[in-house]
Parts: sequence; structure tokens; C-alpha cells
Amino acid sequence: MEEKIKIIPLGGLGQIGMNITAFECGNEIVVIDCGLAFPEDDMLGIDLVIPDISYLKENKKKLKGLFITHGHEDHIGAIPYVIKDLGVPVYATKMTMALIENKLKEHALEDEVERRVVSYGDIVNAGKMKVEFIKTNHSISDAAAIAIHSPAGIILHTGDFKIDYTPVIGEPIDLQRFAVLGRQGVLALLCDSTNAERPGFTSSERTVGKALEGIFNDNSDSRIYVATFASNIDRVQQIMNEAKKHGRKVIVQGRSMVNIVEAASELGYLEVPENTLIGVEEVSRYPDEQLVIITTGSQGETMAALNRIANSRNKRLQIKHGDTVIFSSNPIPGNEKAVSKVINELTQQGANVIYQDAHVSGHACEEEIKLIYTLVKPKYAIPVHGEYRHLKAQSNLAQSLGIDKKNIFILEVGDTLTLSNKEAKKTNKVKTGALFVDGLGVGDVGNVVLRDRQILAENGMVMVIVAMDEESGLRLGEPEIITRGFIYVKESDSVMLAMKDVVSETLKNLEDRNVKDWSKCKSDIRDDLGSFIWQKMKRRPMVLPIFIEV
Amino acid sequence: MEEKIKIIPLGGLGQIGMNITAFECGNEIVVIDCGLAFPEDDMLGIDLVIPDISYLKENKKKLKGLFITHGHEDHIGAIPYVIKDLGVPVYATKMTMALIENKLKEHALEDEVERRVVSYGDIVNAGKMKVEFIKTNHSISDAAAIAIHSPAGIILHTGDFKIDYTPVIGEPIDLQRFAVLGRQGVLALLCDSTNAERPGFTSSERTVGKALEGIFNDNSDSRIYVATFASNIDRVQQIMNEAKKHGRKVIVQGRSMVNIVEAASELGYLEVPENTLIGVEEVSRYPDEQLVIITTGSQGETMAALNRIANSRNKRLQIKHGDTVIFSSNPIPGNEKAVSKVINELTQQGANVIYQDAHVSGHACEEEIKLIYTLVKPKYAIPVHGEYRHLKAQSNLAQSLGIDKKNIFILEVGDTLTLSNKEAKKTNKVKTGALFVDGLGVGDVGNVVLRDRQILAENGMVMVIVAMDEESGLRLGEPEIITRGFIYVKESDSVMLAMKDVVSETLKNLEDRNVKDWSKCKSDIRDDLGSFIWQKMKRRPMVLPIFIEV
Repeated sequence: MEEKIKIIPLGGLGQIGMNITAFECGNEIVVIDCGLAFPEDDMLGIDLVIPDISYLKENKKKLKGLFITHGHEDHIGAIPYVIKDLGVPVYATKMTMALIENKLKEHALEDEVERRVVSYGDIVNAGKMKVEFIKTNHSISDAAAIAIHSPAGIILHTGDFKIDYTPVIGEPIDLQRFAVLGRQGVLALLCDSTNAERPGFTSSERTVGKALEGIFNDNSDSRIYVATFASNIDRVQQIMNEAKKHGRKVIVQGRSMVNIVEAASELGYLEVPENTLIGVEEVSRYPDEQLVIITTGSQGETMAALNRIANSRNKRLQIKHGDTVIFSSNPIPGNEKAVSKVINELTQQGANVIYQDAHVSGHACEEEIKLIYTLVKPKYAIPVHGEYRHLKAQSNLAQSLGIDKKNIFILEVGDTLTLSNKEAKKTNKVKTGALFVDGLGVGDVGNVVLRDRQILAENGMVMVIVAMDEESGLRLGEPEIITRGFIYVKESDSVMLAMKDVVSETLKNLEDRNVKDWSKCKSDIRDDLGSFIWQKMKRRPMVLPIFIEV
Repeated sequence: MEEKIKIIPLGGLGQIGMNITAFECGNEIVVIDCGLAFPEDDMLGIDLVIPDISYLKENKKKLKGLFITHGHEDHIGAIPYVIKDLGVPVYATKMTMALIENKLKEHALEDEVERRVVSYGDIVNAGKMKVEFIKTNHSISDAAAIAIHSPAGIILHTGDFKIDYTPVIGEPIDLQRFAVLGRQGVLALLCDSTNAERPGFTSSERTVGKALEGIFNDNSDSRIYVATFASNIDRVQQIMNEAKKHGRKVIVQGRSMVNIVEAASELGYLEVPENTLIGVEEVSRYPDEQLVIITTGSQGETMAALNRIANSRNKRLQIKHGDTVIFSSNPIPGNEKAVSKVINELTQQGANVIYQDAHVSGHACEEEIKLIYTLVKPKYAIPVHGEYRHLKAQSNLAQSLGIDKKNIFILEVGDTLTLSNKEAKKTNKVKTGALFVDGLGVGDVGNVVLRDRQILAENGMVMVIVAMDEESGLRLGEPEIITRGFIYVKESDSVMLAMKDVVSETLKNLEDRNVKDWSKCKSDIRDDLGSFIWQKMKRRPMVLPIFIEV
């Protein structure tokens, strides 16, 4: 019998975050990554979004393991929410596992999840499939590509990657292994599309060091703040190296930055230069030109350390005239305005803000993607990780390299792509979706609640309270009207009186016609008062009639 | 007596939009521009924001006129809301006035406002001040700088501008006049800061024509859509020229695009090539390669024509596989995600989307700003139009050109800068602010209402209704709980029952202590139920206790 493997993305494709893909071969399933997404603007009040893993729960017996490519939130963030339902071990490299462990601890799950730390080159037996971890480069340490050696053939998933020939810490991506697998024959390549629209190569992380050196030289008299992503340990390393070189002490600010610096130095991924790190309480003991503050908040996050400093909410660190603030980052799409806001605040406090040239991307550009395809020569290409436009751009690149268009699949979440050496086809769709996490609740806020929040957010609410006599079924007194988030209106305002008149009129009408059905009464009040408000002020608040029996 | 002039920005500085500045000399005031702002993300449900012109209303007798630099919303948009309070004539160039008239018509105000169309070089007498309009270039036709010849000296306001030596229509900016005024001596320069952080020169609008030519040549087989700003008539002209050259018919889509094409061709600012424009109903009579559709929606606006086309909500125009869509625009900060969403949708429908190289900015970059300063050599420099970072960048440029730092003023809204040839100082602040327009209401939605909307948006509402007997003052029956936008919860759910228990407990407690004060009762319910919900689910809905007397 011809062997087949099914590839089922359960999240992530065509949307940011929530990367999770199932690979099913016979009666066995392995899963790669398990990330969360951050809410879109219209998901009001939602903290996080996690994938609906119904399909995996239904096929729990088939599950062999959860394999993680790297430690970014969009690849590990959903683990604490779903791992008990999966009930399988988690496999990851050392740094990735440290970040997963932090998450599990926050959810008091560290004793309930089986964890296996792997090294590059390790091959994990997962039933008939074998799962291999391969060294790559990315904007976080210990990133891996994953090769699934299945009876149907080799499936290669790059994870998020770039090609860095001169990484700051560790080795370049294991291009040889990509080539050897390619020579053996790779059935399908799932390759990172994030930068597939960008020509050329992503620069080496090391070039940021050069840029920082220049900035440190130009600003040798001033205190220097550097904002960057906590998880980019190579970046933190380079900032610390530069600080050491210029005889500056380093203060680390922001919870995640403190945590990662601690974890990474323990694991040996960060070498804090001797006599460099000081506590923030020692800040006054050093002159400005002997200080570097490494901080979170490069995306303009309201609660992050940099924002607190910019808004004078940090007791020990305030911006002084002449301070230099370096954004060693680019705004993630959607964060542009928030970042600009912080830059304005810092500038207003007198800081000299530098937000160019001190960052490189963690994702492969066109030429790198072409190189990977040329080494791997997959039969089927499945662009992953990116919005639709990015997946499409990779599809175009793959075609330009001679891959037949009918062998390239831009999948949607829930698609089942069944592959064999002979053919590939999309078969059924499985149940997928996004579950909203709000506070401690998972999934108890759905579309109805969100729609209500949207209406409340736009126009507020007008409540009409009518008391009814339990025995007689007759109305007791006049209706009361209460508003919130609507307009500023007092009891005696003409608008309020007019609204009461409208409701009284409606009620009288109903009573004249002897209508007793509350839902009819409510719907009439909603209609009449709603259209009165629309005509009078072109607004559509939520009108909520409340009948109570006393 | 030494003559003085006061410069009072009433909006616009350090924020996007709402440009309006008062210039007060003795008993006379002239006002430049009167724009609106679009709401920030946290201004829930707000349609527009307009400046609070209390200061002008209080000084209505001094007002001499409203002078407009150009027809963009952030310079003319507030006119219909405030012009009756100002009660002075509006002065503007021809195209600018046409756009103002459109607005006045929408508000049925066209017969109530005195309008005076001016030409470049015209000098309007405004009491002791004389106001001169000077030709500039910008991304809209008929843009002007304004020179105020006052007893205290010449004040020069650039408006929004760039230097285009080879504009598509009309003349380059009147640099000679800038230079002559400079030779006479300019007291203060108020100069556009938008691109003050960008090195070099903004390219000529004509370069976009070249780029479009290339794109039209490369896509000669496919239908071409071009999305751009309706007000950029030179852009529309170039697209039409290109269409004509390639033997394509042009369809115009989007209300504002249709309006502006009509107005601009009537006024002679747009030359529609003969036999080029067709109605959308004729679309099926032409093959794809003979069509160009010029459309609004380049900022990803949900309701704009391009979005409707991308979402198959346009009956006559749908995206077909192989269509080319050109974004002749850049995303305005904050719109990046919306634009990317439309690009994804268009790509998904099979379009080839081109979003690079088909746009130039309408604002002056570093070298242009330096040129203006060098021609004008003002005594005082007042950077305008931009976020704080941009104003600061222009301040740095001005210093690099030898202007003394103490003669450069980064003003805040409401500041009064009093200038004479001898000295400049900030004196008092005047009342300013932003009024929210929501539906037909202006100013009836304030911060309290917005804060309520924010809470409702994030967490929804939990209402507790308690009926009280009017005579006895005793509670009638058990409290009712109704939620909206909170979580999905049924009457019988344990959470609902638990909430009712909490409220009953609180009420019993109050009754035991014989507390009759409703506001105390309400506040206890809010506290107890609020903290119960927070402990149980880490959420903070608005808790609204409602007591009604029956």
C-alpha cells in the first residue's frame, strides 16, 4: 500500500500567531508548535487567542508528541492552555524548554507536563515517524527546523529562521543537513514566509553590534537606554559587550528582560561580562556616561518598562535632557502608532531617540528562501508563517525556482493536505477556530458577547426599566431610563424627558392593545426608542428594556 | 510703542490634524486653517474631533477672517462646525474653496458663509494686518503659504508644502517670493515639520508618472486598478494620461473620487483626456486590457470603494485572477494593518498587488526645509505640523542652520507666543481642547462617557436590579442580574447563581445594619460583586446597581 501523510494546520496560516500544525501518518500524529495570537483590534477586552484543538482531542490516542521549533509566544504561548488535553510529552531544545517551563510555572503546571530537552541532530521516535531537530538561526537562541521522517517521505519544517553565517552565539544554520536531506529526497517543505516579499538577504545579527558601536561612540557623554525584545539574547549580549567595551555598567529593566537574562546566563546562552551588571538601586552611584539601561517596551507596550520610564512612573529612572534612547527593534505591524507615541514622549522629556539601523530581522528574505529551496528541492512546497500576501510571495518564489504550481499549496487553517509520492490533494476540513482568553476564562467570550462589547464601545447603552405587578400583570409607575457610555445627560435634560415620553407612549400603546407578551413589549420599546435616538442624534446605543416583576 | 504679535496655536501641534492658529495684533485677529482630527483608538465611537475655539468666540469682535492654506481635512474639516461662531469671511484659493463649498453644502450652510476666492499674490486687508497668499506645492492642487504683514513684522506660514520643480499641473512653489520676503526681513517662520526626520528631497510628483508608466507596460494584458487619495488631482491626472497612452478607458469609483474628478475638471485643474472616461455600467463592453479603475480606499478604509471591490460587495466590479492593483499611496501611520488586510484580500482573490514605488510624499524633507530657512532667514522659528518628534527634528535642522536655540519655539496647543523685533516670550495659556463629534452631537460626549465606553468595551456590564417599596422602603423580592458584553452566561449557570448569592448576602448585611441610604447600598453591591468577579475570573465589568421604587 502506498504510504500517505496528512498535513493539517490548526492555526497560524494567513494570520499572525497561533502556529500549530498536525502531521498524521496512519494511526499516529505529531504536532509542531503550539502558539497563541494577540487579539485583533475588534476583539474587545480579549487578552489572548489560542487555537481550538478539538481535532487533536478527538484523536488523542494517536498523539505521539508536541515538538517545538523555538520559544516565541506565537509558537509556545498556547501550551499551558492545551497541554493537559493533549497529554503527550513536549520536545524542545534547551533555551526553548526554559521558556516553556517559565510558562508552565506561571500556570502551576510544571509537575504535570512531561518535558524532554533535545539537542540538534537528535532524532525522536514517534511511532513510525521519527522527528529530527536541525540547527537554524532566528531572533531567539536555540531555534530549530524539524524534519519528520515518515513512511510517506521526509517532511521538512523550517520553523522561523534566517541564515546567519556569523551569529553572535553558537553556530550558523546547519545548511549541510538541509542539503543532505534534500539529496535523500524531501517530500514537502514548509518554509517561513514572513519576509518573502523582501528582496536580498537579512543581515547578520552581528551587523547590529557594529551599529551599536557607532551609536555608543557618538553618544559617549550621555546615559544610554536600549529597548529591545527580551527574547533576543544575542542582541542583549551585544549590548552588554558594547557596554563593557565603553566602561559602562548595565541595568536591566522589565520583568521579561530580567527573567530572560537570568535564565539565559544560567543556561550559558548569555555571558554577562564581569563587574558589569548592577541593580537599579545603584543607579545614583554612577555618572550618566557610565550607564546603559537595557529595557523592554520597544513595541510601545503601555505596561512595559520603557513606557513607565517615559511617563515618569519609574521611581529610580527618569529621562534626563541629553539621554540617548536606542530602539533596537522595528515596530511589529499594528504597533507603529504606539511606538511613535513613546518616541514623542521620550523626545519631549529631552531624550535623543535613535530608531534606525539598530535592528535586523529574524526572518529569511527572498535570497535565503531561494537557497533553502535549492538545497532541499522538495517535491511539494507549503509556504507557512505569514499573512496571505507573504504565503503568495513565497509561492511565486518557488515557482521561479521551477517548482510546478500544482505542487505548491497555500493552505487554510483546517485544511487537510494528503501527500504521497504520487499525488497531493486537499481532502476534508477539520474543525478549527480561535478561542478567546479573557481573564481566567477560556472560550466563555464568544461572538455574541464581542458584538455586544462593540455596540457598547461605539455608542453605549440606554436602559429602560419597567416594573410590573406580579399578580395583576399591570405596570407600576413610569419607566426609568439609565444611560452609560451614551451621552452626558442629566435627569432633567430635554433629551431625557423626550426619551421617557417615547417609552411612555409605546407602553400606553401596548396597554391599549392589551399586549401582555413581554418580549413583544421589549421589542417595541427597542424599536421606538432606538429610532427616536437615531433620528434625533444619529446614534445607535444598545437599548435594553428590563421588565421586573414585583 | 513697540509693536507685538501673538501667535496662538488652537490645535494641531504635536497631534495629527486639527490645524488652526490665531495671529493677534492689537485688537485684530486673523486665523489660519480650521481642520479636524480623526479619532484616536481610545476615542470609542467618536466620528471626528474638532478644536475648541472658545478663545475665538470670546474675542469674536477682533476676528478679521479665516485664511485657508489648502483643502485637506486636517485644514478645512472643522469649518462647518465652527464658522457660524466665527462669523467672518473665509479666504482660500479656487480649488480649496471648491472643497470647502462641498462641505458647507453637506451641512446646508452654503448660504450662510461669506466666501472670497483669492489668487496667488493677492493681499487681503485684515485691519492693520495684510494677508498674502503664496504659491506652494503639495499633494493637492492650489496649496498656499500665507504671509501676514503685521505692524510687528512679517510672519510666514508655509502651510503643508513640498518643493516640486516639475509639478504635473501649474507652477513650482514661488521660491522667489519666499526669498524677497526673506530679504525684507521675516519675523517668524512657521514651517511644515511632517518629514523633518527624512533626509534628502521629496521626489517630484512627476516621478510617479514614470513609475506608473513602467507598471502599465509590465501589465499590459491585465485590468488595472489604481487606488489613491481623491484629493491628489495631479496623481489622478497622471493615471488618466497613462490610461490614454495605453488606449485604456477609465472608470472612477468612490464617492469622494467622483466628486473631486467632477469639481477639478470643472475648475480646469484636471484635464480628462477625450473619450477616456466611461461609466461603471459600461465595464462589460471592454476587455480587461482596455480598462483602468481609479478608486478610493488606499488607506484600507472599510467603507471605501476598493474594500468593497476586494470583498465582492461591488456589483459591477470584482477582482479577477490576474488583475493588477496599484496602491499609489503609503499607509498613513496607524493604517498599516488595515491596508495589509486589503492587500491580503485582493491577493486571495487572485490580484497582483503592487504597493511600492508608485507614490511620493506631499511634504518637504530635510533639504527642502533647509532651503526654505535659507531663503527666508527668519528671526524666530516655530516648527508646525507634526508630532513632537517631528517638531523637534525641525528645531534641530534650524539650529544646524545657525538659528539660535532660544529663538526656536516648539509650542503646545494653547500657548501664547508674543513676538516683537526685540524679544519673544511665551505668556499665558488660552483655553483650548478637543470636542468630540459623535453622530449629530458636538461636545456631548466627554471623558466620563468615553471612560464608560472603555470599560464596557473591555469587560461589558453586569446590572443588578433591586425593587424597593416606595412606602415601606423595604426590598421587594430577590435582586435580578442582567449582563451584556460580559460573558456568555445563562440564568441557571453556576456563575449567575453565585453572583446572585453575593448580592443577596450584601443586601442582607445592609438590612441587618438597617442601612437605608441607597448610594451606600449601591456602592457596597458594586464593591462586593466587583471583587467577587475579579477573584473568580480576573475580570472587571462595569457593575451597575439599579434601585427602583414601586
